[in-house]
Amino acid sequence: MNSNPIGIFDSGVGGLTVCKAIRELMPSEHLIYFGDTARFPYGTRSLDTIIRYSREIADFLLSRNVKMIVVACNTASAVALKTLQGEIKVPVVGVIEAGARAACRAQDNGIVGVVATRATVNSLSYEKAILEINPNMRVIQRHATIFVSLTEEGWVDDDITRLAADKYLRGMYNEGVRTLILGCTHFPLLKNAIHSVFPEMVLVDSGYEIALEIKRMLKEKNLENLRNDGVVELYASDITDTLQRLKDMFFGENGSGIHKMIIDSRV
Amino acid sequence: MNSNPIGIFDSGVGGLTVCKAIRELMPSEHLIYFGDTARFPYGTRSLDTIIRYSREIADFLLSRNVKMIVVACNTASAVALKTLQGEIKVPVVGVIEAGARAACRAQDNGIVGVVATRATVNSLSYEKAILEINPNMRVIQRHATIFVSLTEEGWVDDDITRLAADKYLRGMYNEGVRTLILGCTHFPLLKNAIHSVFPEMVLVDSGYEIALEIKRMLKEKNLENLRNDGVVELYASDITDTLQRLKDMFFGENGSGIHKMIIDSRV
Repeated sequence: MNSNPIGIFDSGVGGLTVCKAIRELMPSEHLIYFGDTARFPYGTRSLDTIIRYSREIADFLLSRNVKMIVVACNTASAVALKTLQGEIKVPVVGVIEAGARAACRAQDNGIVGVVATRATVNSLSYEKAILEINPNMRVIQRHATIFVSLTEEGWVDDDITRLAADKYLRGMYNEGVRTLILGCTHFPLLKNAIHSVFPEMVLVDSGYEIALEIKRMLKEKNLENLRNDGVVELYASDITDTLQRLKDMFFGENGSGIHKMIIDSRV
Repeated sequence: MNSNPIGIFDSGVGGLTVCKAIRELMPSEHLIYFGDTARFPYGTRSLDTIIRYSREIADFLLSRNVKMIVVACNTASAVALKTLQGEIKVPVVGVIEAGARAACRAQDNGIVGVVATRATVNSLSYEKAILEINPNMRVIQRHATIFVSLTEEGWVDDDITRLAADKYLRGMYNEGVRTLILGCTHFPLLKNAIHSVFPEMVLVDSGYEIALEIKRMLKEKNLENLRNDGVVELYASDITDTLQRLKDMFFGENGSGIHKMIIDSRV
């Protein structure tokens, strides 16, 4: 057993969906979440910058003695996971592989779609992960920047969102995609809107899939927290309205405080 | 006369619209533009963070010996202008007052609308600036986060954009707004979309207005560059696809290089 915390980070608040899934599956674990809200979003940044930000946050989590780091952000998983795994002694897991595995299990026509941020799509990480599992799979990708701001704005069930879903996904649907990886932590919030345009689409939530894998991994490696003293600590580089709103939505008023923690300050 | 450069900064690439307006009106001036693309957007961040970022960039521009600083970002103008003016010896101008003055001249029914980012709206800066000019004016504000990502995605003439324009602006239109300040440097790119939904709306571009005021101010204070050696230097904290695309669009392949300059790095 190991009662040290699990570190989780994301470019912003989207990774709270992953944090929540981990909390529900493993309520006895102590979780430390860091959202880089002062520098969100990562999806439109260059690779160097994403790696630098990820490294800074990993250093912070390690200073809190975490037994594992979960890269809840698809963009950071796509771009920085291998670098972190090469530099850090505790296990580092990302959402990409978990989502890829689940999509390969779910599809039945040899085609998997991926909708993600620009940086995640450009990295080809989902494609590589899927082809490693099954080299015959056809992977069709599309970046969908506006999905991120639609969820941040709270327009999750709206004509505009359905129109954007149609515009982004119609092409891959026509090419045969019926299993779609939601390759950004925000996108599970758009499930209803996507289903209303494409009712038969199977939607794979990478964040939920990684939570399932973490549970199995902690058991296998004998890293579970048997002391049963699970709490959630939330940190962010900027305390924004969105963060406050989502924190309350996910965890209620009790059980977790937000501690302001700026890691990029020179002031 | 004074041949030192004019410093211009923005949270990202939107301020290039201001830079371009200044360039067209004052081709003999040497311009240094800094876009904080690694930390864009500012509009959803807290006030403390926006002030910190603005101060860091002003320090960089001062190190390049600028004779004036133009805060091209509406959000930073709204939140950080007074702080910078209190700390810095060269003149610091922002887009808010220029936009407010132009809107007060343009309106003929005592009502002015403002559409901007969340931080700009919450700061009430346009409202304060307008009421200082005319205390009887009625000001109706609305934040429009998704306008920013629609322009970044290039969906400037699209059904989704017109639907978003209708959703954001119909309320203020019904309340009588016929003069609307585009209170974010990105929004002038949406002029056509807004006009196709609200044909009679007078749209005020704060960035163009500040360029007019700077020209007058340099002349009055005898700060013009008479050496006629105008160049544009572009700096950014992250070199992104969007930045490259817009740079070429605005300035062509010649006459300016992008120098990578990271000011928030600890690495």
